[in-house]
Amino acid sequence: MASVSPGQLSPPAATRTGSTREELLIAAERVFARHGFAGASLDEVAEQVGIRRPSLLHHFRSKRELYDAVERRIFEELNAHLTGLEAEGAPFERLMTLLNQWLTFMVERPTAARIILRNSSDLISRPADPVEFSWRTVETFVRLVEEGIAAGAFRPIKPVVALNILGSAVLSFVCNADQFGHRRRYDATGRAERAEFESALRRAAWGVLAPA
Amino acid sequence: MASVSPGQLSPPAATRTGSTREELLIAAERVFARHGFAGASLDEVAEQVGIRRPSLLHHFRSKRELYDAVERRIFEELNAHLTGLEAEGAPFERLMTLLNQWLTFMVERPTAARIILRNSSDLISRPADPVEFSWRTVETFVRLVEEGIAAGAFRPIKPVVALNILGSAVLSFVCNADQFGHRRRYDATGRAERAEFESALRRAAWGVLAPA
Repeated sequence: MASVSPGQLSPPAATRTGSTREELLIAAERVFARHGFAGASLDEVAEQVGIRRPSLLHHFRSKRELYDAVERRIFEELNAHLTGLEAEGAPFERLMTLLNQWLTFMVERPTAARIILRNSSDLISRPADPVEFSWRTVETFVRLVEEGIAAGAFRPIKPVVALNILGSAVLSFVCNADQFGHRRRYDATGRAERAEFESALRRAAWGVLAPA
Repeated sequence: MASVSPGQLSPPAATRTGSTREELLIAAERVFARHGFAGASLDEVAEQVGIRRPSLLHHFRSKRELYDAVERRIFEELNAHLTGLEAEGAPFERLMTLLNQWLTFMVERPTAARIILRNSSDLISRPADPVEFSWRTVETFVRLVEEGIAAGAFRPIKPVVALNILGSAVLSFVCNADQFGHRRRYDATGRAERAEFESALRRAAWGVLAPA
């Protein structure tokens, strides 16, 4: 057995750097979800990881760079989470598969839901190109709607009209659990709550898309 | 004709104060819509009205007090804008009347739509009581759904499930006009765009609420 020098008890520097970067992204997602781009403090992000702001700036040169990395990571992981959309099958079932996978992702990661929803309300989060990181997510939805229209399974409709109703509903279900006040609070991770929402979302989708 | 002293050429002090207060609320709604609670600058609000921050603080003692006044005003004016909801009529038509009046209000006042939508994504806008100012708006929707259920016109459904799908759609339609990128931009104030959205929203509502 090779002798272990003290230095080897710690991971190599590159790995440590990678791990700190990952921890920073996780902390930043939490802080941006809570405070938004403008309100987020780099000091708070650094503090949550147990480092100081100058060390954070070694990994991400600015708040904008950190925010971009957080949003890029959210959409990459959302897209990686999708399966079964290329399979043959009724267009409506494929669209519901997509919506339900979005729902699962957002329920498990409400910080992502808050950041994406805030992109709708904020004009400042991504002023140059609002779909810089979300474009693939938007295009996946649009493609499924367009394929359904081409197959005669859906009525002709602008895909973004359906996206504004159905995609926003997923985000709102996750984000609004505490937002209607104590009496109307619900648990977005609860099995029964999710089942009722999923069923209503399916009926809404059929209403929006079914051929006239 | 009574002689007019120089002082009377200006409105009385009380009126001038009232008007500055109103101008501050209008400017603040614009600034909060753009930057959110945390990101908004009182200097920017004051500057837009042509006064300085200390004068602003004479009217509103803190950013929180100003934000509260903006949100209270939005929901008061939204509620004042509603008509015809007490009339006899099919529950579904009354609910669509409500949704279409919300839509008209938000299309004409996208700053309000942004502020309300951001209340969904932000945990910090209104931490103590999220429905402090919006409760009447929420309760109006809930009452119409509950009356429809009681009349057998709607299926039994938790009203907030319908609100998450239908209310959020209204806000998203207004807020997302530029958020899907250049190629998918639309004009939320356009007659054809609104008609297509309104029709899809009606079909979504019927899907969500129609008896099984």
